[in-house]
Amino acid sequence: MSLRLGILGAGRIGGLHAANAAHAVPGVSLEIVADPDEAARSRLVDELGTAVTPRWEDVVGDERVDALVVASPTDLHAEQVRAAADAGTPVLCEKPLDTDLAVIDELLGRVARRGTLLMTGFNRRFDPHLATLRDRVARELGDIWQVRVTSRDPAPPPTEYAARAGGLLVDMTIHDFDTVRFVTGSEITEVSAWGTARMPETPTGEADTATTLLRLTDGAIATIENCRRSALGYDQRVEVHGEGGTAFMDNVEPTSVRVGDGDGLHRAPPPPFFVERYAAAYRAELAAFRDAVTGGPAQPSGWDGRQAVAAALAGQRALTEGRPVRLDEFAPAT
Amino acid sequence: MSLRLGILGAGRIGGLHAANAAHAVPGVSLEIVADPDEAARSRLVDELGTAVTPRWEDVVGDERVDALVVASPTDLHAEQVRAAADAGTPVLCEKPLDTDLAVIDELLGRVARRGTLLMTGFNRRFDPHLATLRDRVARELGDIWQVRVTSRDPAPPPTEYAARAGGLLVDMTIHDFDTVRFVTGSEITEVSAWGTARMPETPTGEADTATTLLRLTDGAIATIENCRRSALGYDQRVEVHGEGGTAFMDNVEPTSVRVGDGDGLHRAPPPPFFVERYAAAYRAELAAFRDAVTGGPAQPSGWDGRQAVAAALAGQRALTEGRPVRLDEFAPAT
Amino acid sequence: MSLRLGILGAGRIGGLHAANAAHAVPGVSLEIVADPDEAARSRLVDELGTAVTPRWEDVVGDERVDALVVASPTDLHAEQVRAAADAGTPVLCEKPLDTDLAVIDELLGRVARRGTLLMTGFNRRFDPHLATLRDRVARELGDIWQVRVTSRDPAPPPTEYAARAGGLLVDMTIHDFDTVRFVTGSEITEVSAWGTARMPETPTGEADTATTLLRLTDGAIATIENCRRSALGYDQRVEVHGEGGTAFMDNVEPTSVRVGDGDGLHRAPPPPFFVERYAAAYRAELAAFRDAVTGGPAQPSGWDGRQAVAAALAGQRALTEGRPVRLDEFAPAT
Amino acid sequence: MSLRLGILGAGRIGGLHAANAAHAVPGVSLEIVADPDEAARSRLVDELGTAVTPRWEDVVGDERVDALVVASPTDLHAEQVRAAADAGTPVLCEKPLDTDLAVIDELLGRVARRGTLLMTGFNRRFDPHLATLRDRVARELGDIWQVRVTSRDPAPPPTEYAARAGGLLVDMTIHDFDTVRFVTGSEITEVSAWGTARMPETPTGEADTATTLLRLTDGAIATIENCRRSALGYDQRVEVHGEGGTAFMDNVEPTSVRVGDGDGLHRAPPPPFFVERYAAAYRAELAAFRDAVTGGPAQPSGWDGRQAVAAALAGQRALTEGRPVRLDEFAPAT
Repeated sequence: MSLRLGILGAGRIGGLHAANAAHAVPGVSLEIVADPDEAARSRLVDELGTAVTPRWEDVVGDERVDALVVASPTDLHAEQVRAAADAGTPVLCEKPLDTDLAVIDELLGRVARRGTLLMTGFNRRFDPHLATLRDRVARELGDIWQVRVTSRDPAPPPTEYAARAGGLLVDMTIHDFDTVRFVTGSEITEVSAWGTARMPETPTGEADTATTLLRLTDGAIATIENCRRSALGYDQRVEVHGEGGTAFMDNVEPTSVRVGDGDGLHRAPPPPFFVERYAAAYRAELAAFRDAVTGGPAQPSGWDGRQAVAAALAGQRALTEGRPVRLDEFAPAT
Repeated sequence: MSLRLGILGAGRIGGLHAANAAHAVPGVSLEIVADPDEAARSRLVDELGTAVTPRWEDVVGDERVDALVVASPTDLHAEQVRAAADAGTPVLCEKPLDTDLAVIDELLGRVARRGTLLMTGFNRRFDPHLATLRDRVARELGDIWQVRVTSRDPAPPPTEYAARAGGLLVDMTIHDFDTVRFVTGSEITEVSAWGTARMPETPTGEADTATTLLRLTDGAIATIENCRRSALGYDQRVEVHGEGGTAFMDNVEPTSVRVGDGDGLHRAPPPPFFVERYAAAYRAELAAFRDAVTGGPAQPSGWDGRQAVAAALAGQRALTEGRPVRLDEFAPAT
Repeated sequence: MSLRLGILGAGRIGGLHAANAAHAVPGVSLEIVADPDEAARSRLVDELGTAVTPRWEDVVGDERVDALVVASPTDLHAEQVRAAADAGTPVLCEKPLDTDLAVIDELLGRVARRGTLLMTGFNRRFDPHLATLRDRVARELGDIWQVRVTSRDPAPPPTEYAARAGGLLVDMTIHDFDTVRFVTGSEITEVSAWGTARMPETPTGEADTATTLLRLTDGAIATIENCRRSALGYDQRVEVHGEGGTAFMDNVEPTSVRVGDGDGLHRAPPPPFFVERYAAAYRAELAAFRDAVTGGPAQPSGWDGRQAVAAALAGQRALTEGRPVRLDEFAPAT
Repeated sequence: MSLRLGILGAGRIGGLHAANAAHAVPGVSLEIVADPDEAARSRLVDELGTAVTPRWEDVVGDERVDALVVASPTDLHAEQVRAAADAGTPVLCEKPLDTDLAVIDELLGRVARRGTLLMTGFNRRFDPHLATLRDRVARELGDIWQVRVTSRDPAPPPTEYAARAGGLLVDMTIHDFDTVRFVTGSEITEVSAWGTARMPETPTGEADTATTLLRLTDGAIATIENCRRSALGYDQRVEVHGEGGTAFMDNVEPTSVRVGDGDGLHRAPPPPFFVERYAAAYRAELAAFRDAVTGGPAQPSGWDGRQAVAAALAGQRALTEGRPVRLDEFAPAT
């Protein structure tokens, strides 16, 4: 018997989850998708033949829906997760849970009290390459000394998107904060950040290029390099240096074909963007959510989602104030 | 509306096609599987919940079945394809069509007269890496001068299997003959072959290691290196040298993770065997069969299947007689 | 007619320069080596048959000596360069010129007034791989956005050496500061640094692992990763990300031989340490010094040497005070 | 005290040996070079300041000359080696010793009777990459099953050269026959060969592209792929497949710099031709000759030179007669 999913949001990510639920993940079925935008709904009806509704409130608590995926705009996440928790419905929420830590902490408290299920949508944790890196680091590297995450997009988003995204660190680096926590198994204690604006389309006051530096509880130093543009394409690499050696997750090559001519030996660029690079990860994420509903580990958890937001906010403050910012400044109120 | 498949044979390959038809290929559904072996049938019932029958004759002509996949032992292929043709049912037949060219030629004639559809199961043509190689060779290399196919298995098959397989060239090299024809777009005109037996489990009189040399209609010289054992694993590489450069299909790496330690930098071995290496190709093959039934190109064709057998038989004769053997010796009777 | 060299210092680097002058660099000859240590002198007499003296003062001004290489302990550099300048003798001085910027600035002023020649011994600038990187960056990358230098030693130096070396950034990172300036053609404006002590042999109060972050005059952000220990060996990589793409200088492989077995495909570790990795660079450095004496460019200059020390001191201060330190704080007095 | 060399021939290879003897190999000095061509002599006088003579007969037996390097046109090799043997002078002779096996066998007999030293100039044996391959094959691979040598030139030689070179197998493959013998430690027992002419500049009746197949005494099958033209450049690779795994000597990369852009990741082409690719090998060859004169192993020996010629002649016959040719047909008369 399949887990019947309701999906809130029919945008790029919501549509991806919907297609995976409909066709690509065994044990999961697509019940209904909610989105206020009629064009987005129509597209999914055409492509997937799914039921749709303009109102997300109709989906939460619908008895035909076993579990929810929240893939709506960020400012709706908290409200929708709260409603799911109140209805006792398991929920997988896209990152970030919210951009206000007080809101997140209230949400996590509520989820804990209700005893419901909340997973955060850090899809990269389900990438088989990153998971392999993490396993080998844990098995072979011993103490971890330095970590580096390179994460560059092929091209900047539309200016209007960038202007509303809450800053480069909240929008883009948030994934890499989680990557560092996932690969090392350590918490971030302090964040420093340097940003610059090098591209014409970047909104005033925003950075399009940033290097972020983290201290971790195990003493390791991590560096994250972000850039909104990369001629090579979507650049996703991780490097971990430790006692036992150095482990690399290189870019994935979409083909094993290479061609040699008078200019040398040429390899293909990496998959163009996250939809292609993390296609398998998105499917595995939905499968993990399915398993979590029936007792499997609910990871990445709500806490994982909170800590990445805390790191991102610390990073934004470090960027603005030009000083290292400790995550203590963002501890949950007790 | 899905293409409803009947599958003849529930062994390793038949089971793989059945699982793909049931779950992995859109527009295709699994109707029934025939196999005389009860254990094999039970396994598929458990795994896929499919209908089964011990008698393949029940499946051919069954009105609930739109198309057939023949994945039975080789000595049944011709009879089953003939029955399918007589019933007007499209058929995808695993390689080899038969090991007797006269039988194949009779079969192709019958299929042509009936106007039915016959595809040969050379799955590697649907491998995205090999397809990329072929495209780039066609676009960038101009005249082709030398081709090399390296094709090695991780470990020899059971001795009893090897003893009945018709020789290394009919069992193993047959795929590589098709690879050469596919990548170059040329016909093979002459085959020479050298074989040796280096492993204890190899049956008397058989080769477990062979290097085969081909002349092609476009003047290129091709070399095929086969071996029943490879410590590195399933080794599948192709190299094409021509006017415009040299193109390589290297082994696929299952992970982009590399680890460096005092012994150097280590990359993972290739996928263990054909089921893993060509997983996507098997799915694409079934999708291409689906499309062929509704008017798409029926390739690899029956003729492609015939020519690979002709090359394999020429190679076996070359191996035995120690001389170059022209494919003219295996031309269809006219 | 050869350039006759006097070398001050017969330690590891002095001995390397002496051997290159004696045998490996055309147009250069070894005249005499000065070192107070009798064993070091005897070794060079045996190996190279060179004249030696315990007193460096005998070499400066000796009319048989056309030019000097200073490869003595750091605390002698300034005095020896000063003596060479006063004698009108061209000098190539190992890094650092001194660890006191006031002393360096006085030295550079004196050299300028005397109109003599001073080169700083940043050997990596003469590495053909790094020079190729710089050329391609200049030609192909356009605006530079992010730079990364990875520079790790195979194993920590003796504890007593580390205790007297002036700190990790002065001893080790100083080369990488120069690498950043060389590859980008920009000046460093600000330095931040994070250090940790992870190895038992590290002296109290010292760091053995550091990540250093630089702002450059062209707006680029550079990161330097240093570590005193690397199981993979001497790890020397540079990566530059800019408008036109991303350029990499990877580790050099001492052999093109790879071996594949059941654990995967194995490549050799990089050359063990700087003597092997930069062997060609040391020869090219001496050849460039030879050419500078007869009118070629005197680069890296004394100013290059000064700026690397300034960056290292800024880095040490950043490490101690936990804040970004601008190089303005280390500007020459005017 | 240096080994004083006389060099017969001031062409491309002779000039290379002369420059190495003059500058690059310790313990060797250049005494005199003989060449009938005045321009070639003048060039060496200018470049190396060496003594020269038009008559090679003046050099053999000159008491100032300790040893000889024969780098003259092939039709002079036998006469010059014979004269050196009669004079009791050690000689390093470029390949081939001669193109007539009877002449070679007479020569080897004479050298053996005189007890003088003869080395054959297979420079690739001194390439550190190939030597590493051989060592690892011997140590790690156990039984050798298949060998492949890829050896392609960047561009065909002048038509007049090709017309006089004795055929592709004698001119080009001869090196690869020696490579197979060197890497495996086995003798060649049988040769088959396929050739084609694909380039406009190839003389009538000659092949410019050939694939040659060898059987070895240890049961291994070896393939040699040759081509007179390669857009990628000088392509020099060896692959050995055996019980313990597969070992590769890939092309050497002249730089560790790679650049990534929208077309992918680009690596540099290999060194342009043999002078660059085997620069270190030529120096090591001269050093080995120096050591052989004072009692070191004289390898590759005259017998090694003979066996490569025998294989080449067998290959030419196989090419002409279209059949496998056993090396027994070319055994020394007894």
